[in-house]
Amino acid sequence: MRLLACATTLVVAALIGACAGTQEAPAVAGTPAAQTMPAASAVLPSWREGRARDAIVKFVNDVTREGSPTYVPPDERIAVFDNDGTLWSEQPLYFQFMFLLDEVRAAAPKHPEWRDNPAFLALAAHDQAALEDHKKELIKLIAVANSGMTVDEYDSAIRAWLASAKHPTLHRPYTQLVYQPQLELLAYLRANGFKTFIVSGGTIEFMRVFAERVYGIPPEQVIGSSQVVKYEMRDGKPTLIREPKLDFVDDGPGKPVGIYRNIGKKPVLAFGNSDGDLQMLQYTAGQTGPHLALLVHHDDAAREFAYDRQSKIGKLDRAWDEALAKGWVVVSMKDDWNVIYPSAAGQ
Amino acid sequence: MRLLACATTLVVAALIGACAGTQEAPAVAGTPAAQTMPAASAVLPSWREGRARDAIVKFVNDVTREGSPTYVPPDERIAVFDNDGTLWSEQPLYFQFMFLLDEVRAAAPKHPEWRDNPAFLALAAHDQAALEDHKKELIKLIAVANSGMTVDEYDSAIRAWLASAKHPTLHRPYTQLVYQPQLELLAYLRANGFKTFIVSGGTIEFMRVFAERVYGIPPEQVIGSSQVVKYEMRDGKPTLIREPKLDFVDDGPGKPVGIYRNIGKKPVLAFGNSDGDLQMLQYTAGQTGPHLALLVHHDDAAREFAYDRQSKIGKLDRAWDEALAKGWVVVSMKDDWNVIYPSAAGQ
Repeated sequence: MRLLACATTLVVAALIGACAGTQEAPAVAGTPAAQTMPAASAVLPSWREGRARDAIVKFVNDVTREGSPTYVPPDERIAVFDNDGTLWSEQPLYFQFMFLLDEVRAAAPKHPEWRDNPAFLALAAHDQAALEDHKKELIKLIAVANSGMTVDEYDSAIRAWLASAKHPTLHRPYTQLVYQPQLELLAYLRANGFKTFIVSGGTIEFMRVFAERVYGIPPEQVIGSSQVVKYEMRDGKPTLIREPKLDFVDDGPGKPVGIYRNIGKKPVLAFGNSDGDLQMLQYTAGQTGPHLALLVHHDDAAREFAYDRQSKIGKLDRAWDEALAKGWVVVSMKDDWNVIYPSAAGQ
Repeated sequence: MRLLACATTLVVAALIGACAGTQEAPAVAGTPAAQTMPAASAVLPSWREGRARDAIVKFVNDVTREGSPTYVPPDERIAVFDNDGTLWSEQPLYFQFMFLLDEVRAAAPKHPEWRDNPAFLALAAHDQAALEDHKKELIKLIAVANSGMTVDEYDSAIRAWLASAKHPTLHRPYTQLVYQPQLELLAYLRANGFKTFIVSGGTIEFMRVFAERVYGIPPEQVIGSSQVVKYEMRDGKPTLIREPKLDFVDDGPGKPVGIYRNIGKKPVLAFGNSDGDLQMLQYTAGQTGPHLALLVHHDDAAREFAYDRQSKIGKLDRAWDEALAKGWVVVSMKDDWNVIYPSAAGQ
């Protein structure tokens, strides 16, 4: 799949680039703490004892303790999570982008004019260098391939793809590549009155198809990038049609904007994994009241992937520096998580 | 206030026009039904016995009866309400627009260049005809007056205005001009597992300031028109700044788009009052499963206002025809509501 990593998504201009170059780096969090919060092993069984888990449990205890100065009323307990690389894997290429490329391939028979298109030829030939040369053309193909259909048709296409596609090297359905410790954290937060949201650079429709079933996050709590849709009556039926035009990029500085626009409250907890999450973390850490900012550090080449500063996908560089400078919690996959994927995935 | 009604809002191009010409028209709903649903008078005390109340109670009973073919699971019980003219009054001019004009007046001392501006002179002189002639210029003034500030500053400005401003003819704070029967309906729906949303052409920030306190609808369930906001660090503090640029118009065909983008589920109940709600009602009525589409008809000149087909504000013409043709529930304020405003407002 490496060749695919050099293309560009339709929806997030920031994703332009080649696929992950991995780089090992020392873990930051995961230092065993002197004191473990009570019951942490019961509520977060896939989290190892350590600074990261302690910070989470302490924060939840703090904001739920009525009468304490750190108490936060339930309707302000807003927790926002990035998706790619934070709730599920993102290597060697954002799973959503794999879907988009598959859509281009699937649409090819209806587009004989693509026969001589250099981007399509590069895609068909798995020619990474040629794809790099024809990025802009590839974006146009993606736009054509996933526009013009109704949102219900698009929804079905995503469902069908997720039901059958498997990760190229891990050989599991993508929805089994979610992180077990994060599923536990989401449930733990909700059990403590938090409302959990996804705030991702990925498109809303792709995530919404599985977010409720897999993460327990309903569609109305999924914030993402979006393509313009247009309302029209088609054969007397009210219909929303996908237009080949970008609407909103929910990435980088777009994340606080998306949070403001869709939630209208400042989160008290934000969890990301890359520089695309920096502003969301800053915005959350800018809370005058209690708050918790966390980053997943992908440092586990054996069980998942190891990448950070040099990676084109999920690059963690500026946000890492800021986390270190400001004391945000950096979660080491290797040290802080004793399980990566749910056991249903065969782990 | 008549002169103000001829200006244009910054956020909703469709609102251009003069203020409401009122017109009496025969009530459509409100015919006493042979059978009253049990307990309706207890849960909806401000709704008179009749077809409209019966339709609501029957629908709620239908979708909540487990095992019945009309059962709808709680997570699909999405109810969407227009705001202006559906949840509170909107005459002689959308209350939000009164705020925007007051903001222009308040900003004037900081803008000596407005001294000779024909739109500002018309506004200051309450010269309706001149305002009509300088609509575009007025929009620019509004854009300048409510841009450049942080979202928190803007939020404070709205709060301050709502706390002190009073309706020009009804002499009550605007937040006391909400409809008591609708407050009961919102509570009744929520008690029956519905999630209630506002889907309005008004801007989200204006509604969010009072929607939770007054309607019980939290900010994340308010969908509206929006202006572009930009993330930036200001004095080391993460900040969202208002830009003088329209982002999204949540009116007319924009309403199903806003619903799709922000909720991602098709509503089962939609309540509007004007042609701006037509597409939202069509979209909801396009549900294959159980659904209920309702319209408030403003036919109560004595207790509120009477206007419909000829009104520039809250025009009800095409949506009314479609409601009659399709059997949507048309709620007569005069016949179906025994109270208009909450008693705290002195009624």
